[in-house]
Amino acid sequence: MRIARIRLGSGDEVWARLDPEHSIELLDIEDLGREGRDLGPAGALTLVKPVTATSTVVCLLGNWKGRDGRDGPSFFVKPISSLIGDGEAIVLPGICRTVVYEPEIAAVIGRTCREVTPQEARAHVLGWTCVNDVTATDLGLNTNFPFLPGKSFDTFGVLGPVIETELDPDDTALRARINGRVVTDTVTSRMNWSTDEVVSWVSRFMTLRSGDLVCLGTPPQIEPIQAGDLVEVEVAGIGTLRNPVVAAG
Amino acid sequence: MRIARIRLGSGDEVWARLDPEHSIELLDIEDLGREGRDLGPAGALTLVKPVTATSTVVCLLGNWKGRDGRDGPSFFVKPISSLIGDGEAIVLPGICRTVVYEPEIAAVIGRTCREVTPQEARAHVLGWTCVNDVTATDLGLNTNFPFLPGKSFDTFGVLGPVIETELDPDDTALRARINGRVVTDTVTSRMNWSTDEVVSWVSRFMTLRSGDLVCLGTPPQIEPIQAGDLVEVEVAGIGTLRNPVVAAG
Repeated sequence: MRIARIRLGSGDEVWARLDPEHSIELLDIEDLGREGRDLGPAGALTLVKPVTATSTVVCLLGNWKGRDGRDGPSFFVKPISSLIGDGEAIVLPGICRTVVYEPEIAAVIGRTCREVTPQEARAHVLGWTCVNDVTATDLGLNTNFPFLPGKSFDTFGVLGPVIETELDPDDTALRARINGRVVTDTVTSRMNWSTDEVVSWVSRFMTLRSGDLVCLGTPPQIEPIQAGDLVEVEVAGIGTLRNPVVAAG
Repeated sequence: MRIARIRLGSGDEVWARLDPEHSIELLDIEDLGREGRDLGPAGALTLVKPVTATSTVVCLLGNWKGRDGRDGPSFFVKPISSLIGDGEAIVLPGICRTVVYEPEIAAVIGRTCREVTPQEARAHVLGWTCVNDVTATDLGLNTNFPFLPGKSFDTFGVLGPVIETELDPDDTALRARINGRVVTDTVTSRMNWSTDEVVSWVSRFMTLRSGDLVCLGTPPQIEPIQAGDLVEVEVAGIGTLRNPVVAAG
């Protein structure tokens, strides 16, 4: 099943099950059986970023470069103000010297959970979406832990375009392109920790709520992006997240 | 003026201007002139944490131990699931070996802003509140950047009890007590960066929205807390944030 966040003509945003002929509003993503209006064919709908105004977006720090005896990866929270969807522009502020794209897959939480085991985790996941955890790696500023502010800029949290519920998140192709040139070409089976392990791990620290995202970390092959670029993150089975890159005005 | 977040009998939460006889609902904290219902005397109201479900809580990493030639402090976002208010219990999870309290003052954003100068910052601040940025400093786990998950636990973001709009945030007493014993006793004039400088600095990275908090960092004198403790954070001119500490059940 393909799920998306839809902007209606009224400006309101709702969750919907996408279908070529009859996309259906979902009244509750904790209970997919609760259906609302027929919204019409998927092609006529306006898709927006697949989170609500109260979603928390958790991102892993390190999931592809070896476990090194670690019990699990660290993580941080991307500010709501940083989040955009498919097609929206990534805006490079003037103080950023080097900005990289970070292609990832994210688990979207369906049922609120706390301290679940890896075996229990899957039942709490709605599905998976594409993520670009854009990061300024050189700000030209002297600060402590500069990677944290460098991930916080407006437009640096890119999510979408849809949520796929039927997917093996631990064995799917993950690719990224800059202006059509393939830069990242890998498979999620190379992640150190599986989706189930990560959702379980993060849930040991914090309650994961319906509508939250857990982004599973970026592979090593990444490159800087510049104004004028088109950057694409593609997860086989989900789709492609495409965003132009522009300089701040 | 004293402002608080109030839970009504209906379960709804609203902003209110506190007054001994006639507390008034505030319909818009970007425009304090828009007043709603008379809610009755302040003493009869139920105060809850002074943030909404869509607020972002930004916390500084380092504002009291010297600038060391730095351009500004780093920062991170506290998850919404970690936030509690005055009187609620701080719950220590079993995997935490050492947990410290971190008493702070926070600027509450009134008017949404982006890339404001220090001179412009004050006009965008609604007021100031007390914060306890509870942190697990030893998790007994091998992970990278453990301080980030160690600040993310449910109940580890303590805010309130009220927002004071008339205060010099850069020259006020900041104290904290464990079971009545004073552990932290300092003044905010010892912070490296002033409130105006910090709000300006963070706004260079991200849009600060009405209802967001920027927590200004903790002084060096802090101590571990344990189940059974009562921890208090007091900012002169605002009030005292009191929370019992309990072990996870």
